[in-house]
Amino acid sequence: MSLKTPTRDKLKTVSTATICTALYKRGLRNQMVQDVQPLDPRKPTMVGEAFTLRYMPAREDLNPITVFQDRSHPQRKAIEQCPPGAVFVIDSRKDPRAASAGSILVTRLQVRGVAGIVTDGGFRDSAEIAKLDIPAFHNRPSAPTNLTRHQAIDINVPIGCGDAPVFPGDVIVGDADGCVVIPAGLAEEIAAEAVEMTAYEDFITEKVFEGRSILGLYPATDEQSKIDFAAWRKSKGR
Amino acid sequence: MSLKTPTRDKLKTVSTATICTALYKRGLRNQMVQDVQPLDPRKPTMVGEAFTLRYMPAREDLNPITVFQDRSHPQRKAIEQCPPGAVFVIDSRKDPRAASAGSILVTRLQVRGVAGIVTDGGFRDSAEIAKLDIPAFHNRPSAPTNLTRHQAIDINVPIGCGDAPVFPGDVIVGDADGCVVIPAGLAEEIAAEAVEMTAYEDFITEKVFEGRSILGLYPATDEQSKIDFAAWRKSKGR
Amino acid sequence: MSLKTPTRDKLKTVSTATICTALYKRGLRNQMVQDVQPLDPRKPTMVGEAFTLRYMPAREDLNPITVFQDRSHPQRKAIEQCPPGAVFVIDSRKDPRAASAGSILVTRLQVRGVAGIVTDGGFRDSAEIAKLDIPAFHNRPSAPTNLTRHQAIDINVPIGCGDAPVFPGDVIVGDADGCVVIPAGLAEEIAAEAVEMTAYEDFITEKVFEGRSILGLYPATDEQSKIDFAAWRKSKGR
Amino acid sequence: MSLKTPTRDKLKTVSTATICTALYKRGLRNQMVQDVQPLDPRKPTMVGEAFTLRYMPAREDLNPITVFQDRSHPQRKAIEQCPPGAVFVIDSRKDPRAASAGSILVTRLQVRGVAGIVTDGGFRDSAEIAKLDIPAFHNRPSAPTNLTRHQAIDINVPIGCGDAPVFPGDVIVGDADGCVVIPAGLAEEIAAEAVEMTAYEDFITEKVFEGRSILGLYPATDEQSKIDFAAWRKSKGR
Amino acid sequence: MSLKTPTRDKLKTVSTATICTALYKRGLRNQMVQDVQPLDPRKPTMVGEAFTLRYMPAREDLNPITVFQDRSHPQRKAIEQCPPGAVFVIDSRKDPRAASAGSILVTRLQVRGVAGIVTDGGFRDSAEIAKLDIPAFHNRPSAPTNLTRHQAIDINVPIGCGDAPVFPGDVIVGDADGCVVIPAGLAEEIAAEAVEMTAYEDFITEKVFEGRSILGLYPATDEQSKIDFAAWRKSKGR
Amino acid sequence: MSLKTPTRDKLKTVSTATICTALYKRGLRNQMVQDVQPLDPRKPTMVGEAFTLRYMPAREDLNPITVFQDRSHPQRKAIEQCPPGAVFVIDSRKDPRAASAGSILVTRLQVRGVAGIVTDGGFRDSAEIAKLDIPAFHNRPSAPTNLTRHQAIDINVPIGCGDAPVFPGDVIVGDADGCVVIPAGLAEEIAAEAVEMTAYEDFITEKVFEGRSILGLYPATDEQSKIDFAAWRKSKGR
Repeated sequence: MSLKTPTRDKLKTVSTATICTALYKRGLRNQMVQDVQPLDPRKPTMVGEAFTLRYMPAREDLNPITVFQDRSHPQRKAIEQCPPGAVFVIDSRKDPRAASAGSILVTRLQVRGVAGIVTDGGFRDSAEIAKLDIPAFHNRPSAPTNLTRHQAIDINVPIGCGDAPVFPGDVIVGDADGCVVIPAGLAEEIAAEAVEMTAYEDFITEKVFEGRSILGLYPATDEQSKIDFAAWRKSKGR
Repeated sequence: MSLKTPTRDKLKTVSTATICTALYKRGLRNQMVQDVQPLDPRKPTMVGEAFTLRYMPAREDLNPITVFQDRSHPQRKAIEQCPPGAVFVIDSRKDPRAASAGSILVTRLQVRGVAGIVTDGGFRDSAEIAKLDIPAFHNRPSAPTNLTRHQAIDINVPIGCGDAPVFPGDVIVGDADGCVVIPAGLAEEIAAEAVEMTAYEDFITEKVFEGRSILGLYPATDEQSKIDFAAWRKSKGR
Repeated sequence: MSLKTPTRDKLKTVSTATICTALYKRGLRNQMVQDVQPLDPRKPTMVGEAFTLRYMPAREDLNPITVFQDRSHPQRKAIEQCPPGAVFVIDSRKDPRAASAGSILVTRLQVRGVAGIVTDGGFRDSAEIAKLDIPAFHNRPSAPTNLTRHQAIDINVPIGCGDAPVFPGDVIVGDADGCVVIPAGLAEEIAAEAVEMTAYEDFITEKVFEGRSILGLYPATDEQSKIDFAAWRKSKGR
Repeated sequence: MSLKTPTRDKLKTVSTATICTALYKRGLRNQMVQDVQPLDPRKPTMVGEAFTLRYMPAREDLNPITVFQDRSHPQRKAIEQCPPGAVFVIDSRKDPRAASAGSILVTRLQVRGVAGIVTDGGFRDSAEIAKLDIPAFHNRPSAPTNLTRHQAIDINVPIGCGDAPVFPGDVIVGDADGCVVIPAGLAEEIAAEAVEMTAYEDFITEKVFEGRSILGLYPATDEQSKIDFAAWRKSKGR
Repeated sequence: MSLKTPTRDKLKTVSTATICTALYKRGLRNQMVQDVQPLDPRKPTMVGEAFTLRYMPAREDLNPITVFQDRSHPQRKAIEQCPPGAVFVIDSRKDPRAASAGSILVTRLQVRGVAGIVTDGGFRDSAEIAKLDIPAFHNRPSAPTNLTRHQAIDINVPIGCGDAPVFPGDVIVGDADGCVVIPAGLAEEIAAEAVEMTAYEDFITEKVFEGRSILGLYPATDEQSKIDFAAWRKSKGR
Repeated sequence: MSLKTPTRDKLKTVSTATICTALYKRGLRNQMVQDVQPLDPRKPTMVGEAFTLRYMPAREDLNPITVFQDRSHPQRKAIEQCPPGAVFVIDSRKDPRAASAGSILVTRLQVRGVAGIVTDGGFRDSAEIAKLDIPAFHNRPSAPTNLTRHQAIDINVPIGCGDAPVFPGDVIVGDADGCVVIPAGLAEEIAAEAVEMTAYEDFITEKVFEGRSILGLYPATDEQSKIDFAAWRKSKGR
């Protein structure tokens, strides 16, 4: 894994909204995993490199409940292979009518040190997963076993998740607004820029609460806004 | 009503996820009421036999607000007829643009001892319903009166709810993941099997938290898993 | 602004469900903003006259991040122009794939005394917005900057929001069930009628909790219901 | 059957568009079967009273291929019971993922003198059905047997079809634009009014082709338009 | 109108597919009117500048059938104002449940010399419109009068149509694949480039039919492809 | 390729509807490619083994128009590699907003002897493709270049297409109703059974046209039906 600790630490302090804007400036408009929510929106921000699992539609004869007796079944294998610190991302073809995974597998990921899990389908045992420490994101709860609709077919290949492209190693960041995918090669510069942007946004928020108009302040087109921000940074040590 | 008390009690202790897997083993893949959520996900598990109400699209001339002055209006009649212990299930044709019911009717069901209410549409007064003791499940809140889109037409006939088939007397179980429909004739055996499965899942969960891999454990393909489970059951008295 | 204080005060005490029924009696079936939820369902009821912003689909060459350096950009201008006490209503063409606004703009609206904000798209910084005092309603969280999909094009023109018609000056009421649009000319009579209806609904709710059947009570077709309600009003001073 | 021959004959000469406008004048806005198309748009206009079949979601154990060995299976029974001159209307819950019927059953309806068939799902053998004389309307072709998703459950009850309410005996009219449902009690007056409207529309069309503006002509707010129309009717004998 | 005749003539000879690629090269990815089809796919290519009409959701009390007695009703006014040679583009909010227009209005446009009509809703009298000379594009047929769901509110303002941004004066091109929107300022250069691209595509098509591989040919990365194309152009006089 | 010529020939004489029923009898309910239509429904039945291409969502920086200058681009490579007699099946994630392919590539497939092409997205140049001899199936026409939304990522891996599972080598059959996927191992027995079923269906159709009831005939529960069919086969030599 090549996501450096300082980059990871920076990304933990910024929002998916700020990251989306930084990506937008670079012409990347499609990196948000669409229509995916955290099971518990109060968890700290999730950050990690993508480790992917691809589902295809299940064919009945290939998916009896006994398939899991095979230790090399891709779903189970992927759960044991996902590196600590990574985010486990599942391409469920935006179909939440059967579960992408349940609480036992997600607990296993947590114990193994995985940073989080995302599916564009749904999780079963959603109340249990919400209570775990590991952040999890899905479309909606879904009780049916994954075999009902999904067959795990490929581990760690490029996938789509919620209409966003996800390559193994891309950096996934998740908060209350959902999950965003940062191309691996951009993670460091996006992290640095987002930290800067966040400082300015925090400054603006403070000023707006104090009653200042957004015109000239957001963005900082007034010279005074820049001067005030410089002073604020100094006083805050940011 | 033929749902026996021990079956009901067993079903209160298991999850819709576990029940779905038990149904899946019997070739039933379509028993989950799709895209329906509890108004309050912290309520205890809902269990009861289905008592159904079928809505058709409303025709304007047949649905002035005065229709409810007729005591035999099917919606109001159904509310008074639904047996205590049953689950009131409404076929709203997956249309939440007008309410399926509101807090007064749901309160009446609660007072009458009804076990819960499910619609594949939406409830109005959703905040009030969430605060009641009776569990309620819907797609999303919806303030417009049901007459806007729905005309109650049939009481206790076979219906669809969230794409699942529901026959009167089928057993409905609901938790944070949503609602599942157990065919009446299978309730007892599903309940028994789900209790057994739940014991094993609880055992696995404990082991996974302790750090054991899911391979060989989930499912129990390692002989040791079976031995450990036997010991665990003994120690837990399950 | 012509929404009178007593009308506003009355509307704060009634539900969107009750208002929808009052509108339904007048042949208005389509005034609910469909599929829009409060970010914090526990906030007090939102009431205010509609001040609107219309978005059209964004064209890439017209929406670089630098557009906001123009103080007359319609989105920013609208935020500063929305009158205190009004509700800011955005026509996002039911597209939540990019944000309609974020926490800084919504904070500015709050500081300016605006009564609330509604979009049929989504907000970014949703966790921060939920914590503000100002009520906000959207379809779902959405982190991407609005420029990704939306271009603000018109201020305070008639729009659609969640399939409902919204004319500037219409009265918007929002609670846990969502938002309803009262045509400006009807606000006073709807408010008066809804207050009356609410009194009766509160009476019924009390009686239903006491065990009375809804037949003859809801609606009051039994003479006794009317007598009891008259007594109840007297005792409650309503 | 109470649809009188003159009414039927009149309805064969008017369009679903004209009928929709006549219904709209009476406050009926929801009588169009939404998203349903003719398999062959060049067929003559279909007219007949609704004979309905209701499908519910199929449960696997109740729908082996052998169910059709039962002569009283509701789908097959309905095909044999539908009166000559009627329109067979199927409530497929707007689900075209499995067929509502195929060419053999539709051929049988044709031979029995049935006036047409409509489903808000899809037909299999769509190319064969398109070649029959009997008009057929669906959402899209669908090859899987109806048992895959649909279980026929009720014959000739009130249903929804394409979000429109359909009561047995309502008059169904179908042309290239789709199908409209005329409440039984209104058929005669709607037919008469639509014939009148059609005369005026034909007159307007002629004038518009001749170069006249629609202002004052459509609708006839200019006195001259009325005079010209009177002359036109006389000359055409309509 | 500033669309020059040579530009119009060039655009009549190229496809929407080729134009989309030319726009894509300039970073414009969202100019296709999504999910809109020609009523008659065999018509010649439609070209003209956009003249727009914006619909909002209809409110029942504002849309009795009598509104059309007002000569200044925006829908009727727009039909009479649309310049000859223009394309009439309607923002129907992607809602085909009621008609955007019918055959009489479309005939009037044809007589007035308008180049075509597009809606992201549907037309009534679709069979008649298909037979006219004027090209028309919609989502699907729809018989109900536009008043059922749509209120015409603004003439010739920027709109969305099928998720594409449309500014008055943009150039609309339509063929069997649907309609594309060329920003006004790019029309000339896109037309020129598309003509060049079309020559090469025609050359490739000929070669592919002759059995040549697409590798090195499409695009022309082989030197030989360029040489052959130069010879082909010469021989064809293109 | 292991699809034997006699199997291919048999499958060319049967319908997708009949094949779906044969698959249904074996518990396979999900083999229809949903919501995909032939560009020209009058073409002969398409039969061939699946050769697949998987698209993922396009990331802007990876998909400039220049990518096709790389001869090893997966889309172009796949077109040249697809074996004669195979069906080229594209997983476009059910997204027709950009093209899956255009007429030049489809022409190349035809020249190379490929049996057909299917996507759950859309084709550009749809009118040209419809005129080719090679059968093509899609959701709807789509002019934008595939790079707008799709990045070709994998050749001949298991995919989903229109919610159906497709493994390389599965046999695809397409007619006016759409495309069905026969698991490779079942092709021979399904072909044999479908030929038998078709004989009986042809017999029934003849009898139904002659006026016989479907009861006892379809299916053949009357002894007489079996006797008549035996005679019919003899006389027809089938």
